[in-house]
Amino acid sequence: MRLAELSTRSGVSTATIKYYLREGLLPPGRRVSATQAEYDEKHLQRLRLVRALIQVGRVPIASAREVLTALEDDSLDHNSRLGVAVWALPHGPEPAADDPATQTARHTVDALLERLGWQYGQGYGPDSPAYGMLVTAVATLARLGYPCAVEDLAPYARSAGQLAVSDLDLVERYESPDEQLEAAIALTVLYEPVLLSLRRLAQAEESNRRYGPKSSGGPKTPEE
Amino acid sequence: MRLAELSTRSGVSTATIKYYLREGLLPPGRRVSATQAEYDEKHLQRLRLVRALIQVGRVPIASAREVLTALEDDSLDHNSRLGVAVWALPHGPEPAADDPATQTARHTVDALLERLGWQYGQGYGPDSPAYGMLVTAVATLARLGYPCAVEDLAPYARSAGQLAVSDLDLVERYESPDEQLEAAIALTVLYEPVLLSLRRLAQAEESNRRYGPKSSGGPKTPEE
Repeated sequence: MRLAELSTRSGVSTATIKYYLREGLLPPGRRVSATQAEYDEKHLQRLRLVRALIQVGRVPIASAREVLTALEDDSLDHNSRLGVAVWALPHGPEPAADDPATQTARHTVDALLERLGWQYGQGYGPDSPAYGMLVTAVATLARLGYPCAVEDLAPYARSAGQLAVSDLDLVERYESPDEQLEAAIALTVLYEPVLLSLRRLAQAEESNRRYGPKSSGGPKTPEE
Repeated sequence: MRLAELSTRSGVSTATIKYYLREGLLPPGRRVSATQAEYDEKHLQRLRLVRALIQVGRVPIASAREVLTALEDDSLDHNSRLGVAVWALPHGPEPAADDPATQTARHTVDALLERLGWQYGQGYGPDSPAYGMLVTAVATLARLGYPCAVEDLAPYARSAGQLAVSDLDLVERYESPDEQLEAAIALTVLYEPVLLSLRRLAQAEESNRRYGPKSSGGPKTPEE
């Protein structure tokens, strides 16, 4: 298809598509004349992922390019490509190295991972961004007067484990390994607001159940 | 305590504390002379919440003021105050009203809540921000070519339900109703990066388990 059709089918303006092409976020089309190029379904798919990352996930251009490069690295197997691509996603500020709160947070996180039996594997060694993001979050909680122990984090980690199973089940519905990789990255980013809004809805539901006026008949009594 | 001690104990500069006082985010101290005021433990606690909202949650000043006003509204019971305060937290963009993707998303979300048996209660009617945030997220997924059905969302909602139980269990460890309300708001915001980073770690763990080189001995075989 030509650029105009790619634009219509993707809902992305031709100006934006040209910008993505210039920035290397979208591979060039097959040149058919001096001024025209031909695009295919793979371009359409890739455009979908680029929009998910940039417009919804607010991933900076440079990070998006790193993610996409990892997806295309033929020297890596499926699992490693996925690990490298998630690694390149933004993860918030780096932990402050020498801060006592950060050191304590690091010990807490290590103890948590050990208790869960999670192996330091592809994608989350102590140098990985996801590990750093968790350490930063736990250190911030402590600094603000809400210290959290391994026991506090464990139920969240167990829920996260279930979420990850749902995530990969969704991804496996896509047929080809390439589509699966793209879906894995897009859904990691796009399901974040789904999850955070569901948590707030669930909090309201649980709060109604515990403290609400209509909690009649049930065996549950308000704890406070 | 005086302003200087409040600053030392909270780790917040006196200039920032004065700014919070001017903006009405912190109630005024008890005036003891023409130039000095006396602050107490409640100020310290409130400062902790204000920092959590503004510095970590990046909540705009006006929204933070709304959250804090809700917490102090004596005309409401505990559950309602919590609902109103969470309502005032930022929830991302409003759903686009007339878009077909938004209409479909609204039906999906309604069907999901019905299937879960969640009552539209305090804090999450169809006009609530958390409901709107979920509709927007589901509509965005569809527009980007990742439509999701009720069955896709259900496992995420079930995990969110468990998270909400963990959230309220944490909150109930605080003794007074005032402290519980402050903790509920602070932990809603501060646990978001904890949860998102744990999900990424869990994804890596699950990906290793399914596709990794070391998955020997287990009954699980790679699905792809």
